[in-house]
Amino acid sequence: MSRFWSPFVHELVPYVPGEQPKLANLVKLNTNENPYGPSPKVIEAIRAELDDRLRLYPAPNADALKQRIAEYYNVSTEQVFVGNGSDEVLAHVFHGLFQHGRPLLFPDITYSFYPVYCGLYGIQPQPVALGDDFSINVDDYARANGGIIFPNPNAPTGVPLGLEEIERLLQQNRDSVVVVDEAYVDFGGQTSISLVDRYPNLLVTQTLSKSRSLAGLRVGLAVGHKDLIEALERIKNSFNSYPLDRLAIVGAVAAFEDQQWFDDTRRRVIDSREQLTAQLEEMGFGVLPSAANFVFARHSSRDAVELAQGLREHGIIVRHFRLPRIEQYLRITIGTPEQNEALLQALRTVI
Amino acid sequence: MSRFWSPFVHELVPYVPGEQPKLANLVKLNTNENPYGPSPKVIEAIRAELDDRLRLYPAPNADALKQRIAEYYNVSTEQVFVGNGSDEVLAHVFHGLFQHGRPLLFPDITYSFYPVYCGLYGIQPQPVALGDDFSINVDDYARANGGIIFPNPNAPTGVPLGLEEIERLLQQNRDSVVVVDEAYVDFGGQTSISLVDRYPNLLVTQTLSKSRSLAGLRVGLAVGHKDLIEALERIKNSFNSYPLDRLAIVGAVAAFEDQQWFDDTRRRVIDSREQLTAQLEEMGFGVLPSAANFVFARHSSRDAVELAQGLREHGIIVRHFRLPRIEQYLRITIGTPEQNEALLQALRTVI
Repeated sequence: MSRFWSPFVHELVPYVPGEQPKLANLVKLNTNENPYGPSPKVIEAIRAELDDRLRLYPAPNADALKQRIAEYYNVSTEQVFVGNGSDEVLAHVFHGLFQHGRPLLFPDITYSFYPVYCGLYGIQPQPVALGDDFSINVDDYARANGGIIFPNPNAPTGVPLGLEEIERLLQQNRDSVVVVDEAYVDFGGQTSISLVDRYPNLLVTQTLSKSRSLAGLRVGLAVGHKDLIEALERIKNSFNSYPLDRLAIVGAVAAFEDQQWFDDTRRRVIDSREQLTAQLEEMGFGVLPSAANFVFARHSSRDAVELAQGLREHGIIVRHFRLPRIEQYLRITIGTPEQNEALLQALRTVI
Repeated sequence: MSRFWSPFVHELVPYVPGEQPKLANLVKLNTNENPYGPSPKVIEAIRAELDDRLRLYPAPNADALKQRIAEYYNVSTEQVFVGNGSDEVLAHVFHGLFQHGRPLLFPDITYSFYPVYCGLYGIQPQPVALGDDFSINVDDYARANGGIIFPNPNAPTGVPLGLEEIERLLQQNRDSVVVVDEAYVDFGGQTSISLVDRYPNLLVTQTLSKSRSLAGLRVGLAVGHKDLIEALERIKNSFNSYPLDRLAIVGAVAAFEDQQWFDDTRRRVIDSREQLTAQLEEMGFGVLPSAANFVFARHSSRDAVELAQGLREHGIIVRHFRLPRIEQYLRITIGTPEQNEALLQALRTVI
């Protein structure tokens, strides 16, 4: 605490990211990183950019990347925003599109950064309870609001919402911005980008951290009506002219160009998820139906904290949230088949 | 304009960065980039990090970099903040330390991003006129304020302020945060970091974009009392957990480790600046005394806009600000000896 702080800083409750332990040989299934590396073409593109040109500023609007994304999703470049990870994109979204003096609606169990952004930008959060099966009921969002945001599939549950339901939600909420946070969509969800031309209040955010294996490079994006994008550009250009460095821009472009690598690796993750789900169920876990690169599972008889602790003693880290309704669940990132096998073996000892 | 925007977005007047033209063969003296590339050890360090580990998140607190900077400046790691370019660091400073309901003081001629940040965070800007010689008179800042910020050396003038004067300003302003923005300090200014242990309200920001030739990598930093740093950390952790990517962290660490390269290249820039200043003066320019990697010069008889246009026709870009008091000045980045010679030759034709 300090008298020099802007008053709101005293009240901030920052986000706590998943642990990034420095110990080697850990099986790290706690932050939903992709078990496979990025496309070799990404490495190659960065290497080709890695020279004296680092003395020069990057393209402030990352035009090459915007253009690549626009082509990929068949939208115009004016409908694309890019940022330093989807967390930065989301921060600008909260700042630029959600300050309307009415509460922001999001699921009670969801990405725990949302209420943090509300604290940062003075937005009133209003969590909306998920159903008992952890599904989103869109009718619960048909109430006065200053915006709506939810991940699809949701985190940390992995449960997806269908496009028909999202469209129904959009039809019920034409006067406020609806943000679909698609961090995990490539592992089995359906993107809402196909709806942006019909709903000018829809914004879709994505990240290259998960399905494109680039958590270490920090690139995120948003697609929506050009008026929504313009708000984000105004904020960005009043915050940091050059949020993406030269290496991130070329690496991200290359990631969108290697469709084969993208399809192969996400297919492997999806296959492993299906196998792991079946195996966990055999061991007495209830596993929510996941369309993400993780599963959310609770054991029928064993305490989640004890399980997480036991796994840790075997060098395996998973994520546990000490929160109402989900305190008996573990969120387990899908690893390689070898990592998943190590997880199962350790669980057999622990349970 | 859109009803979906947060109301303040309508009033935002974003910063306009210097042009980043895509034409080859231009002599680009408009954005104060270093004419020399970064240390080869930076390139090497990034190359060594450039592999499948990009799938993993970076260290959220960039501890290795904080530690390196702390050692370099002989402070504790708790006194160091790092961000995605000093523009991001400054944004968090404005948000976290300058919202006190009293006006923020800064020079009337200075980095034009400051009033933009004020617009972003609802801070009242109060420009304080520089003297006729474009120097800062610290007594002009002895008035009620919610914070003070100025670059040292100042931009776009290049004029430095001595440590004794800065200390006098600090003594007159013990109740508000004083930020010294040292983007250009390594080219001949004196850093105020030596004062942070005596003045808990002093924060010093720096960038790796200029003296360390890494504009393309986006790394900035702040040093000050740990309470000031904590405000920035709270904002950062409520905004984006991982602002520095894996490659930027290792590259920045390596930049701080190659003192020889740093000293050699800045010495060359300083030598070129002194030569160029003398040559411009011979051609009829008045040149402000610069401690930066640029000069701010006005010709005794020729119009600045016409000169800039004439230079452009010779493939040379410099920066001109259409602002009161300085509209007859050109800001010219120090290039290589060859680039400076090209500039002088073009000027001989144009004038």
